[in-house]
Amino acid sequence: MADITKEELKKFAGLLRENNSDQFINVEPLQVGGILPPESRKTLLSFGDGYSMCDFCLSGRLDEIEKPAVGEFLRLFARFVGMDAAMPTGASREAKKIVVQQLASKVPEGTTPVLVIDGLAHYSTFMAAEFGGAEVLEVPHDGHPTFKVLAEKYAEVIDKAKDNRNKEVIAALLTHADYLYGNVTPPEVVGKICKKKGVPFIVNGAYTVGVMPFSGKAAMADFVTASGHKSMASSGPIGMLACKAEYFDLMFPRSTIKGEWSGKTFNHKITTVLGCPAVYGAPLATLMSSLAHLVERTGPENWAAQLENARSLAATIERIEGVKLLGDRPHEHTLMQFETPPLEEAAKNAPKKGFFLYNELKARGIVGIFPGMVKAIKLNTFGLTRAQVDHVGQSIIDVAKKYGCAVD
Amino acid sequence: MADITKEELKKFAGLLRENNSDQFINVEPLQVGGILPPESRKTLLSFGDGYSMCDFCLSGRLDEIEKPAVGEFLRLFARFVGMDAAMPTGASREAKKIVVQQLASKVPEGTTPVLVIDGLAHYSTFMAAEFGGAEVLEVPHDGHPTFKVLAEKYAEVIDKAKDNRNKEVIAALLTHADYLYGNVTPPEVVGKICKKKGVPFIVNGAYTVGVMPFSGKAAMADFVTASGHKSMASSGPIGMLACKAEYFDLMFPRSTIKGEWSGKTFNHKITTVLGCPAVYGAPLATLMSSLAHLVERTGPENWAAQLENARSLAATIERIEGVKLLGDRPHEHTLMQFETPPLEEAAKNAPKKGFFLYNELKARGIVGIFPGMVKAIKLNTFGLTRAQVDHVGQSIIDVAKKYGCAVD
Repeated sequence: MADITKEELKKFAGLLRENNSDQFINVEPLQVGGILPPESRKTLLSFGDGYSMCDFCLSGRLDEIEKPAVGEFLRLFARFVGMDAAMPTGASREAKKIVVQQLASKVPEGTTPVLVIDGLAHYSTFMAAEFGGAEVLEVPHDGHPTFKVLAEKYAEVIDKAKDNRNKEVIAALLTHADYLYGNVTPPEVVGKICKKKGVPFIVNGAYTVGVMPFSGKAAMADFVTASGHKSMASSGPIGMLACKAEYFDLMFPRSTIKGEWSGKTFNHKITTVLGCPAVYGAPLATLMSSLAHLVERTGPENWAAQLENARSLAATIERIEGVKLLGDRPHEHTLMQFETPPLEEAAKNAPKKGFFLYNELKARGIVGIFPGMVKAIKLNTFGLTRAQVDHVGQSIIDVAKKYGCAVD
Repeated sequence: MADITKEELKKFAGLLRENNSDQFINVEPLQVGGILPPESRKTLLSFGDGYSMCDFCLSGRLDEIEKPAVGEFLRLFARFVGMDAAMPTGASREAKKIVVQQLASKVPEGTTPVLVIDGLAHYSTFMAAEFGGAEVLEVPHDGHPTFKVLAEKYAEVIDKAKDNRNKEVIAALLTHADYLYGNVTPPEVVGKICKKKGVPFIVNGAYTVGVMPFSGKAAMADFVTASGHKSMASSGPIGMLACKAEYFDLMFPRSTIKGEWSGKTFNHKITTVLGCPAVYGAPLATLMSSLAHLVERTGPENWAAQLENARSLAATIERIEGVKLLGDRPHEHTLMQFETPPLEEAAKNAPKKGFFLYNELKARGIVGIFPGMVKAIKLNTFGLTRAQVDHVGQSIIDVAKKYGCAVD
């Protein structure tokens, strides 16, 4: 049992988060969509213990539990994203992995499966491809400063891959909104191309499903992946894989293994999720609790107000001479990146170098700017009130002035 | 955005657990080891939002975060289980999957990988084998009523598999304590055989690591899998894969994929966990918080007291004529199964049939007996006070008498 001393353990017991979203205005690009609404914090505590979802599991499958109504929730969720069916996964990346791996399993031996992706794809898309044994082909973006994914070019990238007889395009994936610039690429443009080319279409909605209006049907998607902790106000980790009915059995095949001595079989279990989706406690409970909140906040008026906040902050920050919003303009998402050469310049003479920005903002009650980063900054205003957005803007202006930047 | 009505969503918002462990004495076999100590409930709330662990992630890998001290925690955890290194996973089943899949990847083409397992292995062990493309060979148990795994027979099962040239034994796995009877099989017996045969040895500690004394070193294990939500007082889902140093790189290989257009690479990311272990919020935070509690409760005296409680309850329940504890005798774990033919008989005349037992116990403040099950019952006294154990025993006796069973 090891010689672990009480001294070594003390720091961990009752661990608390330094930058708690209760105490600070949080603008961390990946976190703001995951913050729990008050009702889901009650759910978090109530379902905090590991297997809390399984008190009345009769069939041995999470997705079939009726108390609480998991099955009913999953059907509602599928409607929420405009797809036929949905299954919880460990994360959006796991959802992508399942799609790639299962589609790749249908490719004849000797043929390399190819996944066509956008030039702004998240690293976990590459990981899903690598795990599933697929090569990636990227559809370019138009580079600095807009970084716009050239959606129409999916056609030629798919065609090019199809020209190679040793390769097979198993699917095309679009990162609906990306994590770097918050660029939103219209999925229906890619969906239409995929339909025409006969290629299954995956929409990675990790930064859109749960924060902005979304319809997998309008996108002509065959698969939609979503992230609970990133954008669906859920305690992590939890993702969702939604798909068209025709793909359900391929994505979630039943076990066929048999114990040669015991004769045991498990033909109700799903092999691609190792039997049963392993999100049986707080992650799924909080996602279920938050669905009403998600439906409300992704309504068009709410999203328009969120965009207005983001654009207002962008206009404020661009008052610092030399600072520039990257990506779409006008911006179509609350996640934004700014190139900030004057802050980088200011850092050279600051006592804590690049950390001055993080420290100054934290002193003003704002966290979520990556500590030490001043060459460019990323932030996300989602869920902030207008007053909070104004405070963030004014604070950044004040700090810039304090460190000698010219402000218009 | 779908035509979801407020009425359909109402039942989910602020979802609460019916059988909360705060309000009831919980004897659910899979849940009791996962209940959070008070200090970790504070951690749960503080780290409840999705990416809360990543506020100061500098390298892009969870296991290297220094604030909070994830890296330090993982080294402590490895010592806690007597292994060289440890990595968080989505669940114990994911840990098993990684081991099987990675060991199987080393088998020459045309050769079938074989995993030797015990006759009491959990279904997720079969799933891990199936996913990793391995066949299973089971080491028998001795059947009713003891169901004792014949640990010495690992030798002959391994030898038999080795006789087949088309097969290769990639590892042997032992379920240290099983989920059906709570039988504890001494891992060192199997460890010694594996060492002699040159076969890597996996201990599935999902029901032992975190509740009873455990040493992977004493077990001569190459791999130890553990479950946070089952036995390590953590909010799920989280598992751990601990291993000997020599296996670390095979289990956690770095990404080699490259974007052909962007030139992007991700060579710090780990492919087998899709980049970075996806347990960045409450699951890992609560496990870290609970480690001090785990070290304390797995001390030999504490475990001896827990066993005494379990045995005392078994003696009480066996006063019902015809009721019999299955598995090890004396019992070496707090998870127990009883065959209960008199309760099954009583159910025939009970108004709610088999549900009388669940309902009567719930009325007495006790939950965790599977609703409707009366042919045999499973329960786990882990973490209960002696007074609670006595109340459970007396309640079962009272219910049995009320429904006409003979009690000694």
